[in-house]
Amino acid sequence: MIKVNISAVSGQKVSAMLPRALEAHNALRNKTGRGGDFLGWVDLPAKADEAELARIKAAALKIKTDSQVLLVCGIGGSYLGARAVIEALRGSFYNIKKKDTPDIFFVGNNLSSGYMAEILSLVEHKDFSINVISKSGTTTEPAVAFRILKNLIEHRYGKEGAKKRVYATTDISKGALRQMAGAEGYETFVIPDDVGGRYSVLTPVGLLPIAAAGIDIDALLAGAREGMELCAEPGEGNPAWRYAIARNVLLSEGKRTEIMASYNPSFVFLAEWYKQLYGESEGKEGKGIFPAAVNFTADLHSMGQYIQEGARDIFETVLLVSRPDANIKVPEDADDLDGLNFLAGKPLADIEREAFRGTYLAHSDGHVPNLVIEIDKADERNLGALLYFYEYACGISGYLLGVNPFDQPGVESYKKNMFALLGKPGYEEQGKALAARLDF
Amino acid sequence: MIKVNISAVSGQKVSAMLPRALEAHNALRNKTGRGGDFLGWVDLPAKADEAELARIKAAALKIKTDSQVLLVCGIGGSYLGARAVIEALRGSFYNIKKKDTPDIFFVGNNLSSGYMAEILSLVEHKDFSINVISKSGTTTEPAVAFRILKNLIEHRYGKEGAKKRVYATTDISKGALRQMAGAEGYETFVIPDDVGGRYSVLTPVGLLPIAAAGIDIDALLAGAREGMELCAEPGEGNPAWRYAIARNVLLSEGKRTEIMASYNPSFVFLAEWYKQLYGESEGKEGKGIFPAAVNFTADLHSMGQYIQEGARDIFETVLLVSRPDANIKVPEDADDLDGLNFLAGKPLADIEREAFRGTYLAHSDGHVPNLVIEIDKADERNLGALLYFYEYACGISGYLLGVNPFDQPGVESYKKNMFALLGKPGYEEQGKALAARLDF
Repeated sequence: MIKVNISAVSGQKVSAMLPRALEAHNALRNKTGRGGDFLGWVDLPAKADEAELARIKAAALKIKTDSQVLLVCGIGGSYLGARAVIEALRGSFYNIKKKDTPDIFFVGNNLSSGYMAEILSLVEHKDFSINVISKSGTTTEPAVAFRILKNLIEHRYGKEGAKKRVYATTDISKGALRQMAGAEGYETFVIPDDVGGRYSVLTPVGLLPIAAAGIDIDALLAGAREGMELCAEPGEGNPAWRYAIARNVLLSEGKRTEIMASYNPSFVFLAEWYKQLYGESEGKEGKGIFPAAVNFTADLHSMGQYIQEGARDIFETVLLVSRPDANIKVPEDADDLDGLNFLAGKPLADIEREAFRGTYLAHSDGHVPNLVIEIDKADERNLGALLYFYEYACGISGYLLGVNPFDQPGVESYKKNMFALLGKPGYEEQGKALAARLDF
Repeated sequence: MIKVNISAVSGQKVSAMLPRALEAHNALRNKTGRGGDFLGWVDLPAKADEAELARIKAAALKIKTDSQVLLVCGIGGSYLGARAVIEALRGSFYNIKKKDTPDIFFVGNNLSSGYMAEILSLVEHKDFSINVISKSGTTTEPAVAFRILKNLIEHRYGKEGAKKRVYATTDISKGALRQMAGAEGYETFVIPDDVGGRYSVLTPVGLLPIAAAGIDIDALLAGAREGMELCAEPGEGNPAWRYAIARNVLLSEGKRTEIMASYNPSFVFLAEWYKQLYGESEGKEGKGIFPAAVNFTADLHSMGQYIQEGARDIFETVLLVSRPDANIKVPEDADDLDGLNFLAGKPLADIEREAFRGTYLAHSDGHVPNLVIEIDKADERNLGALLYFYEYACGISGYLLGVNPFDQPGVESYKKNMFALLGKPGYEEQGKALAARLDF
């Protein structure tokens, strides 16, 4: 179900790293490594809370019944996972196409007033619900957005009507959002204490919006369990080990940037999710592989030139789907002015496959090592397994790199400065000192 | 109208590079540098063909009148520029929101059958037109897509009806698409010979889809003329020089990746356009700054950790808009559970500005040099100037780097392999040799 080809990497170097991978593997399973308090995701697929899953499905059904739009209010891990899965499985045109589930718009992930104005106009004549997602309830972006949306929904449906349309995914007992949900009477779902934001897609954080989009979350979780089993087995056959080792070998050879390349246009946000997962897990202590992404074949006519002939400090990881979902063929053309009749009758999928094979060789020949992660199909089961695989490989890879893959101390720096510059009580002096340093 | 702050870079090093910038500047203006045959974009805004512009506006009006959907069929430079401008000026929800102009979907930029199936279903019950954009008419992706769409539109409207709904943007005299347009009787627009794809957004390549989206292309071109004047003046005050020099100084100091950071959620494709422009212009001969992009504040909760504390071989270029378009304020909340009442009454735009200022200092303190490109407003005039600025700076920067910024020899490699693997007549032997090297 997940195959990882690392033939671009020296077998000897891979073997040499196996003992350290075993250490990392054991540290993940025994929670003995750095960040061991945030390993709840490791066996999460195996211990799904059936009652909560049933409530998630019931909420999704209620939203489908009473709402044309679901606004999902969250940032970072409370945003990217759900969006990645919804687009990967329901397509990047999800909100445009006809369907029997609500449009889903993501809010609270920026401070743009233009964006907020667009959202307000999109729900102006539509019934909507809100899923607000925040562990603390005090993160600026979602909290500000939720203030605005709470006003709107209470104005539209009254206090009583509104409380049946707001779903809060938050801490089990503490924090501003938990407290507000209690006071207002919102239905709530729990963000586990031992699962960090970027590893939370298979918790209610991701599952409620995903279910609301009409995706089978049982199948997604079943796939994740299969992924979990694949990654539990120590040894060179473990796909997560293979990927984690290969990228660390490549880093040791001076390949500083990883380009995640997919041929599926609806995988753009899956790549964004990958960038958060790996960037935030590994980018610390002056270390890390810089995570970038391209979408082929579009970007073969954009970043393709750089990949083929630019600075040789990059490697490429192709995320490949063996069996695409549609079957469209190239039509015959009597005039053949474009010279493509040699392709007539051929499925697009076959041409795409040859584009991948040709690109794999071209980039490899251009001294860009190519790893390949291949799944059978872009369906719930394979995607569930893939999400788990990426998470597990990230844990191994971060330990191989020698960092704590489960913290994100650097995210606080901009927040502190921003609060100070905004004159938050207690930050006044600091704010003045910062402002004095700025030309803007 | 465009301010470029490069205070993060040593003034001495900037001064030292001025003579080489002047050489590059003169080479661009006198067409004496490498790739001098592809400098038609340099004075393009000053020599707009009024008759062609009038035809573009008339075509846009006709499309608005008879079509609910415009399918824009192109790849690379025949795709990214138009999409970048449409999203930047009409928002990322353009296709979802109510408007008096057609939906615009981009096709022919991939080989995905799933994507094509979605497009076919999106136009199933809608009137549509096609703008097919290709210099040669033989590039695989748009040519294959156009074969499929041509069948569809002829089936829907008949041969006669279809020819009034297809607009071909192509070479003035030669190539498969020019020939087909002549034979079929399509209205045509010209891709100038001396303007490469990635520099073509202000030619009919970009202008027709942009006009069809209801954007004022006269104002866009007027802005581009202002940008042209700003960039024509030699010296340290030239914004394009400043940006080009700063990024080359940073590269010389080991900063190998540039992260284009914007606070505007509708600038995502503007960043994609930048990635093609710079990546394809500079990524050759083993050289180039790796172009990446983030969208803040969303990605402060994703790539933010890496930028703050990861490997220190990156720099950041912020693309900032001084005056945002909407005015939404943070509401007061009686309970203040989220602790944000200190922001009550404040415009979101002010908070966003402080997020930028705080992030600028945080990342700078984290040893990530920050350049800042600032425009007044996200409107036609400023965007036109900005597009020209990026193009001109790219020309200077490529010459400073010592490459030909106007070719893309590496893009052929994957195509040759793909054709061989697909069994294109004449490539059979090569195809067998390539296939023998593959495990896939």
